[in-house]
Amino acid sequence: MSLEDWFDRERDRILEQWKVLLSFPSVSTDPAHRQDCLDCAGWLADHLEKLGFRSRLLETSRLPVVFGELEGPPGAPVVLLYGHYDVQPVDPLVEWTHPPFSPVVEDGRMLARGAADNKGQHFYFLKAIEALLEEDNLRVGVKVLIEGEEECGSVGMTGSLESWKDFLGADVFVVTDTNTVSSGAPTLVMGLRGLVHLTVELAGARHDLHSGNHGGVAPNPAEAMAQLLATLRAPDGSVAAEGFYDGLEEPTEKEKALSKLAPFDESAYAERTGVPPVAGERGFPPDERVGFRPSLDVNGILSGYAGAGVKTIIPARATAKLTARLVPGQDPARCLDSLIAHLRKNAPDELGLRITEQGLGGEGFRLDPDSEAAAAAREVLDGLGDKNSVMLWDGATIPVISALAALLGIEPVLAGFGSDEDRAQAPNESFPIKRFRAGYLYVGRLLQSLGEHGDPDGSVTSPTPA
Amino acid sequence: MSLEDWFDRERDRILEQWKVLLSFPSVSTDPAHRQDCLDCAGWLADHLEKLGFRSRLLETSRLPVVFGELEGPPGAPVVLLYGHYDVQPVDPLVEWTHPPFSPVVEDGRMLARGAADNKGQHFYFLKAIEALLEEDNLRVGVKVLIEGEEECGSVGMTGSLESWKDFLGADVFVVTDTNTVSSGAPTLVMGLRGLVHLTVELAGARHDLHSGNHGGVAPNPAEAMAQLLATLRAPDGSVAAEGFYDGLEEPTEKEKALSKLAPFDESAYAERTGVPPVAGERGFPPDERVGFRPSLDVNGILSGYAGAGVKTIIPARATAKLTARLVPGQDPARCLDSLIAHLRKNAPDELGLRITEQGLGGEGFRLDPDSEAAAAAREVLDGLGDKNSVMLWDGATIPVISALAALLGIEPVLAGFGSDEDRAQAPNESFPIKRFRAGYLYVGRLLQSLGEHGDPDGSVTSPTPA
Repeated sequence: MSLEDWFDRERDRILEQWKVLLSFPSVSTDPAHRQDCLDCAGWLADHLEKLGFRSRLLETSRLPVVFGELEGPPGAPVVLLYGHYDVQPVDPLVEWTHPPFSPVVEDGRMLARGAADNKGQHFYFLKAIEALLEEDNLRVGVKVLIEGEEECGSVGMTGSLESWKDFLGADVFVVTDTNTVSSGAPTLVMGLRGLVHLTVELAGARHDLHSGNHGGVAPNPAEAMAQLLATLRAPDGSVAAEGFYDGLEEPTEKEKALSKLAPFDESAYAERTGVPPVAGERGFPPDERVGFRPSLDVNGILSGYAGAGVKTIIPARATAKLTARLVPGQDPARCLDSLIAHLRKNAPDELGLRITEQGLGGEGFRLDPDSEAAAAAREVLDGLGDKNSVMLWDGATIPVISALAALLGIEPVLAGFGSDEDRAQAPNESFPIKRFRAGYLYVGRLLQSLGEHGDPDGSVTSPTPA
Repeated sequence: MSLEDWFDRERDRILEQWKVLLSFPSVSTDPAHRQDCLDCAGWLADHLEKLGFRSRLLETSRLPVVFGELEGPPGAPVVLLYGHYDVQPVDPLVEWTHPPFSPVVEDGRMLARGAADNKGQHFYFLKAIEALLEEDNLRVGVKVLIEGEEECGSVGMTGSLESWKDFLGADVFVVTDTNTVSSGAPTLVMGLRGLVHLTVELAGARHDLHSGNHGGVAPNPAEAMAQLLATLRAPDGSVAAEGFYDGLEEPTEKEKALSKLAPFDESAYAERTGVPPVAGERGFPPDERVGFRPSLDVNGILSGYAGAGVKTIIPARATAKLTARLVPGQDPARCLDSLIAHLRKNAPDELGLRITEQGLGGEGFRLDPDSEAAAAAREVLDGLGDKNSVMLWDGATIPVISALAALLGIEPVLAGFGSDEDRAQAPNESFPIKRFRAGYLYVGRLLQSLGEHGDPDGSVTSPTPA
């Protein structure tokens, strides 16, 4: 039976299982959801066992990683698949049309937190493996690694990777946690950005002060935070922190040329998002600003009272959260230091500055457009539908990917089927079943192709210890 | 029986009644508390009837005003007393050590929202009148006006004042909704600032965007709000909006000299609040910046996610709330226009700017330090304790006072017993019973003094229609 026919026959059952996976509120950034994360990991490990994997939870200093292994024929290549079971927070909850952890299918889309990022985009690879197993068509060894902290920097997993090196070895490393370009053409991602994040707090009076009795004397942390954040941007749109761009590697002319194969459509962008793509460094076109340049964003600000009506206070404190996206050559630790040094230098003396929750979310990387793995993936992607595949230097971050690739000594193959319209980090996240099926087909055919042609790099790996 | 003895005998009963008044969650800025406000007004009107007043609720376009009238002997002066029954919002609720509307007495202080501002500071004048009535010592006519929208601009009352002119007429206008200086010396307030307020919204994408896929292209409303707010402050600490200072009247040398009688203690201020008094215009000392200069404050900012953990979004919108305090000569409508024009001019084109909830909270005013009413009040204040009274040009605002004073053609007598330590606009508001008693004595003695000496301006008013 073809992969297509198997999916269409099993469709209802697949959707019901996917809903169960989505019903775990596995919000890794919120300690209150720790048990929900553990429950979700446990369910996935059980599910892998049911498919025929030997599975277990790999403990870390934080949340466990689900690991599953399925041995292939002697001499067959081993494919490592990566996903994550944690999801973004759901606030503002009031904007959800359905409860975020009560999945429903509406207009052909699965609606739930994590439907796209990344439960949908890893559950389809499990279903592809299931189909190949049932049809006795799996000719490769498979390892599955599904972590629980992608949304908060993969700290636990990154810290443990070295100690798992012995049993993680693989020949091909497949990651599906990425988007297509906006046209929907199958997309091979050739680069991802790195990430650093930090929280900035300014503390003023011991409690909120009356803006009448104190207006004109008491320093205002809300205003000071605004002034401080404003200093981070230079007039040309670049990040003003000294040393932030140190070491940045420029893209090659070939990379730039390949990136233009999927041109950035400014008016389509404005149509889709509601804003023109005008942020960032004025000296670069939008596609290069996302793919080849770092960025800095304020993710949130909270200070004082911002509800209905008038509250005439000088707030006691202000909090802002920042993330920067980094490109190859930028050292995350040095970028974080440069931002912190800038904030310390520009914060007013009369308020207390605290930097909390700072963290490193991995380096940026770019892949070799001429590698054999890239060629194999592009062949499968080109055969998926009526649109030829494109190459994308993506602005997003999968913190642990560069660490894993370095550890295993192989470049990842990055192709997934997410889209902006999925609202992966916003209320009402969803994922169309059509794209879930495309992802399933892509993984299924890629595994078949790898099974037929062997290791794309020609080497044969001996079975690894479980 | 002396006023002191009467209070000490009735103390427990007074505290119990005060607690009932404090138990109404009469938050006027929140439409959800409208019925609580109405219930509180009804309770006050009943209470006035029990004391012997003829009382009624004066309807406005918003919340009603409690009005009570007590006729005095023929030819006696009529005293109008002003208060307000509405209170500030309670958030953040988690910071309260007791529920804000379940009053308790702790360490000699009444702890509840409104304990100081203004339920404590008007309930004591009702008790002073009760004491004088019981002892047959009231020789003046009394009118009481307790409004329900002081915390949100007194819009309803201000709009109705003209139509109440016939029955509000009085010879002396007493307001107790003010603070003493920080030393605790009885304080005659000689000026109050005016107020304008507005809410600024910047709208970006239709929903929060992923900061990886969009960082470097999508304009960020949180960052843009920071940059916009930063433009409001000139390098010398003044408000940068063009025209904001137009018409400002400088204080006289005499006013400046009198204000120095209660010198601003910078180190005591820092001790008390936790911040040095360094905000506002660099060219003026702190007491003048509060008393004689306008100010501008950010009361709150809200955008995106600022909770625990990392949420890598570009927020869809940002909101900030602003209030400005104004001094005599500044026209509130023109100041508001100048702020709005500045915001429109400096907001980025690519984001949607909306100004909402803008409003006028009255003009600033300064009183004549040589008036007879001021002299009478100072004599009572000087006799209250071991500290001589001082004169204060206060930075706060009681929106409706200048309108009422203009309508009645008399200057208000402003002396109250609030203090910064009462945390009038913050969690854990409280008011010490000792100062409640001082306020009670002040009003009681002032009414006695006015009854003995007649109208301080020498005129005799005919009884007014009820």
